[in-house]
This record gives sequence, structure tokens and C-alpha cells, in this order.
Amino acid sequence: MKFTIQRDQLIDSVQDVMKAISSRTAIPILTGMKIEAKSHGITLTGSDSDISIESYIPAEEEGMVNVENIEEGSIVLHAKYFPDIVRKLPEQHVEIEADENLSVTIRSGKAEFHLNGQDAEEYPQLPKLQTDDSFELPTDLLKSLIKQTVFAVSSMETRPILTGVNLSLVDNKLSFTATDSHRLASREVPVNSTKVQFESIVVPGKSLNELNKILDDSEEMVEISVTNNQILFRTKHLNFLSRILDGNYPETSRLIPEQSKTVLQVKTKDLISSIDRASLLAREERNNVVKLSTLDQNIVEITSNSPEVGHVSEELTVQSIEGEELKISFSSKYMLDALKVMDVDEVMVDFTGAMRPFIIRPINDPAMIQLILPVRTY
Amino acid sequence: MKFTIQRDQLIDSVQDVMKAISSRTAIPILTGMKIEAKSHGITLTGSDSDISIESYIPAEEEGMVNVENIEEGSIVLHAKYFPDIVRKLPEQHVEIEADENLSVTIRSGKAEFHLNGQDAEEYPQLPKLQTDDSFELPTDLLKSLIKQTVFAVSSMETRPILTGVNLSLVDNKLSFTATDSHRLASREVPVNSTKVQFESIVVPGKSLNELNKILDDSEEMVEISVTNNQILFRTKHLNFLSRILDGNYPETSRLIPEQSKTVLQVKTKDLISSIDRASLLAREERNNVVKLSTLDQNIVEITSNSPEVGHVSEELTVQSIEGEELKISFSSKYMLDALKVMDVDEVMVDFTGAMRPFIIRPINDPAMIQLILPVRTY
Repeated sequence: MKFTIQRDQLIDSVQDVMKAISSRTAIPILTGMKIEAKSHGITLTGSDSDISIESYIPAEEEGMVNVENIEEGSIVLHAKYFPDIVRKLPEQHVEIEADENLSVTIRSGKAEFHLNGQDAEEYPQLPKLQTDDSFELPTDLLKSLIKQTVFAVSSMETRPILTGVNLSLVDNKLSFTATDSHRLASREVPVNSTKVQFESIVVPGKSLNELNKILDDSEEMVEISVTNNQILFRTKHLNFLSRILDGNYPETSRLIPEQSKTVLQVKTKDLISSIDRASLLAREERNNVVKLSTLDQNIVEITSNSPEVGHVSEELTVQSIEGEELKISFSSKYMLDALKVMDVDEVMVDFTGAMRPFIIRPINDPAMIQLILPVRTY
Repeated sequence: MKFTIQRDQLIDSVQDVMKAISSRTAIPILTGMKIEAKSHGITLTGSDSDISIESYIPAEEEGMVNVENIEEGSIVLHAKYFPDIVRKLPEQHVEIEADENLSVTIRSGKAEFHLNGQDAEEYPQLPKLQTDDSFELPTDLLKSLIKQTVFAVSSMETRPILTGVNLSLVDNKLSFTATDSHRLASREVPVNSTKVQFESIVVPGKSLNELNKILDDSEEMVEISVTNNQILFRTKHLNFLSRILDGNYPETSRLIPEQSKTVLQVKTKDLISSIDRASLLAREERNNVVKLSTLDQNIVEITSNSPEVGHVSEELTVQSIEGEELKISFSSKYMLDALKVMDVDEVMVDFTGAMRPFIIRPINDPAMIQLILPVRTY
């Protein structure tokens, strides 16, 4: 194997692929990165067996030459050293060569690295997904869907299915739902007409977080295909493959109250600032609990009390309060997590009494829902 | 105690004073921050008994009003909550009030915090230094002196005296010296005429690091005064007091070779890049050791070899090589630490053979010296 490649292209690809590589893996060769040279371009592969990422660098693209002098072949390099070496090479031109003894030479300017490689034959084959049945989504919309739901997955392994985000695609409507059983985040979006339908596919939250980091905010399309146990996200030069969690995702639609007794309309930023301040004293002792009480005349009071430290109270003017008077306590962390991803200037908060879950949603957009269970304080 | 203060001034002062406050201290009240209101201004104090910092906010300054409505008094507030509260207050105007029950109220806009304070009488008195005998140094020069030496202090408590930087002021020449017995960093600068003289004052490296963080790069003068066991750095609004280490600092001047057998002149940046690359493979296995060999014609070769991982070599063109041929091995970490603080485009490296300490210094400036002991590799 031999080729000459542009350093900056290589750095970007290496950085993407590294997101799948873990130094703690049961399969030693997965601590390495696979490099495969074909006449049309170079493919880098990393995997921790849950997530696999392939990044492709075409030899030529839009009249630019990325890779030259290609002799086909493949090798696995230790991912502990290779990324730092690439990043610190002195020149744009980088020559990479592997000989029959798996010895790899990396040359750039007057610097020359010799690394011991591993046989690419020993690297596990990634499952080939049939991609006829796929649907598409703009990258920035996919990133929003992930950000607005993935924070609500459970971090506890006691119910593994809740560590994932539940995807469903029925009648050209795609929904993402996550819950840790104390809160729930859900959003539904229309997709372009597709034959693909699935009721429930649960993708590990960790996979979606890594995917979100790799994808640039753009309107380019991501092609998504699903099999029984894998989901593939494909962009122009990237294949991101994740395993799907086994098990049945709980039915969540009944959790969402259908009527409300008190409805607030409030500026998102104001509510975030108030809750954030109230939570300062609630951090440890009180498990982040703050209390919201409606007062007269479009004013709510946000308070928190930690006997050891002190207490805090703040009157917040809201856009409107409708319905019954209310005093309710909840986790400030859950509230802040939800408000920070909503990405709208104003939100509605629908309460159904101090003991019932409440809902935060954008005004006039029922397709996004943040649900939080209150905390009993007496 | 009661006053109204500008939030941004308060944030800056709190941030400075926090650098002295540790949550792990044998004296519980030192986990707090002392606030003292006098008619002319507010003083904040933090201390971990090694370092004490006082920050002063004058009521008025250059026609601007920082503090108003002052009722004199003092209180101690828990430093775990106070800084975050101040930072997140909604308005510029902040009212702070302590009552006779040590209950403190902080008001800003419609937010109101009530904190339990502690009696300021219980806060230890900081030693008063007599400041008649002092000398002055521009802030940016003091910061350079610290940065160029403090990294070389020992991190081992086996010889506590080496965890400090040795200061001496004789005949209006101030020198800073640090060594961990494997390397030494030293710089001497002239100071304005002063009566102050001392042979050796050892200031903890940790104190100087914190001082460097607090001081802004400016040409304003820092006033420095020394007693038997304390050193005080004083700027317009800041008193930074550190304890001095007990014990005799070793005589270091004899370590510095007086003649050299091989002299390199090289661009600092080129040498940093080459050593940095060579050290990539040397990180663990080989204790960061790299090898430098002179070749013909103004070329040196930098190499490193880690049998398990691979090896790296690079030819580096230098400005000049004079004297004997040389092959020498040394810690790349020590070399990079030294080169990165030199702040000059070109350096001289003076070798006296493969087994002797070598010196890195700016061209034409004998007042700054970085000395490194080589590593035996056979």
C-alpha cells in the first residue's frame, strides 16, 4: 500500500473516525484504525463494535487532487499515535507506505515516522447494509432532533432500553423520543415520501451524541437505512453505523396529559435565567429542586430553600398565566436541560396540578414536547 | 453592613480572591470569603493560609462610582455559593446587606438571595507587612520572570525547598531561579535603585503560578516587600501575600558550565516542532527521551525509538553548528518546557559533551539560562 495525501483532508477524516475508537475494547485490533487504499480513494475505518465509522477521501473531487500515486492495499495503525502524528506533520504533502512486513512509513518534509502496523485481514468486516430502503433528512434537522431528545435518555443501565432514543417512522412522519422515566423529550417531523416504515428502533444515546459531533451543520442530506440490528447514517463521505438496542421501548404516548389546568406563556431566556439562579443554592442538599408559584398579575415566583445555606426567591413577569393557581416543585436540572434545547423565544408550560407531569412546548408547535415529572415536597 | 455595588467590579474582585480559597483547609472559616465595608470602599479577602489575597474596590475611582450607600461592617460568606450567585445576578446594581444575626441578603433586580454568613471576627488576621522597604517591578516583567522559571520547580515533596523559586536581590539585580535537580531555569533583571537586599527568598511555585494568573499583562508597577516569612506583592487594588519556604536553597551557580564544546544556533520554532514530533512516539515507554546528533553542513538529526511502536527521525537545518561532533539524549519534555518560555526567535544551545548539562539561551542575553541534564542511553 502506498499513497500521497493532503494533510488537512487526512486530519479531518482521522478526527471523525477516532470518535468510534476506544482504547478500552475487548477486541485488541479495534484500538487501531484501518486504512484502505483503492485507486479511487482512501477509506479510514474505526469501530468499538457498537459504533463503526468509515470516512472516505476521494482521490479527486471537484477538480482538486486529494490523493496521488496510489498503490492499492490496506493496513491497521495504532490509533494512540497515528492521529497526533498526522496533526503535527510539517508539510501538506504526506506519503504513507506499508511494506509486506506490516511496517509503515509516514513521510512529510524532512520528518519520517516508522510505525509497526497490523494486518488489515484481521480487522472485523463491517456489516454491509442494504441501502435500497432508505429515507433522507437534512443534516441540520437530524442534528436538532438528536439535540432536542438525546439529553433525556437514562444514564442508568438498570433499564438498558431507556439509554437509547426511540425512533419511529410511520406514514412519512419521523419521531424521536427519549425518557429516563422522570422526564421525556419528543419531537416529530415530516420526511419526504419514502417506502420505509418502522414502529420502533432504539438507537443508543451515545451513538447519537457521537453522530451529532461528527456532522457539520448543513442542509446536505443524510441517508438513513435500518436493518434488524443496525442503523446506518450516510453522508457524501461518511458512513456511520450503530447497533440498535434489543428490547421493547415502553409506550410513552399515554404519559402526555391531554388537558391542562394552568398554562404559562413565558420568554424562554427569562425562565432559564430565573431557574438557573434559584438552582444555585439547591445544588447538593436539595437535589436541585426549585419551586414555582403563580402570583397575581402575570407574575410567578421561583424559589429554592436550603436550610444549611440559605434561600432564594425571584419574581418573574411572564407573558400570560391562564387557569388555576399553582404551586409546584421540580428538578431545576431537568427544566434547564429542556429549555436550553427548545430553540424558540417563547414557550408554553402546561400544568395539570402539582402532582402531575407538566409539558413545555413551543407556542403553536405540538410536534415538540418536553415533559417533566414534578417532585413531591411534602 | 450594607452597600450597593456594581456587579462587574464585584465579579472581577471575587474571581481574583477565589484563587486563594480552597475547599480543603484545616481552618473551616477559610472556606469562606471575607467582605469588609468601609466608607472609602470594599475589601474582599481570601486565604488558604499559604496564600492570602485582598482585593479592594474603592467607592469612587476616576469619577466613577463603584460602591454607594455604605454602612460599615464585615461578614464572611461561603465561597462555594457566593461567586456563582454574583456572576448570575440579573442587574448591574447589587445590594448586599448583613444583619446582626449574620444573615446576608443579596438583591439585584427582582432576585433576592438570603445566605447564612459567619462572623468576620473569627476570620484570621492577615499579617501586616511593613512596606517601607520595598522595590518595584513592571507587572509584565514580573509575569515573564515567573513564567520563565516556575515550570522548573520540583513537584516532589521529598526536597520541599525545590518546590519554590529562589529570589535574590543584590546590588539592584533581581534573579529568579528554579530547579528540580534535572533542569534549571534562571533569569536576572536589573531593578530600579532600592535599599532592599536579600540573598535568598524561596517563594512556593504554587503561589507564583496563582499570582501570574491574577496579574494582567500591563506596565503598571508591582511593589514587592519581604519579611522573614512572608512576601507581599502589591498593585493598585490588590495585595497578594505568600508564605516563604523554610530552608537553604542549594547553590546552583556551579552547575552552569563555563565553557562549551559544541554550539548550535537554531530557530526556536523549528526546534520546538522537531522535538515535539520526535516525542510523539517516546511518550510512555521511553520516558520522553529523544536524541540529537550533529551531521554535516548545519544539519542536526532528531530521532526517537520505541521498539514496540516504531521510530521517528528528522533532519533539521540549523543556523550554525560550531565545535565538536555530538550525539546526546535528553528529555523532550524538559526541552520543550524550556524552549516554549524563551520568547525569542533564535536560541543558542551550548553543549559540553554527551554527559554534561547543556544550556539553552537567547542569543546575546546571558541573563536568561535554561539548563538541562542529558539522559544516559547506554
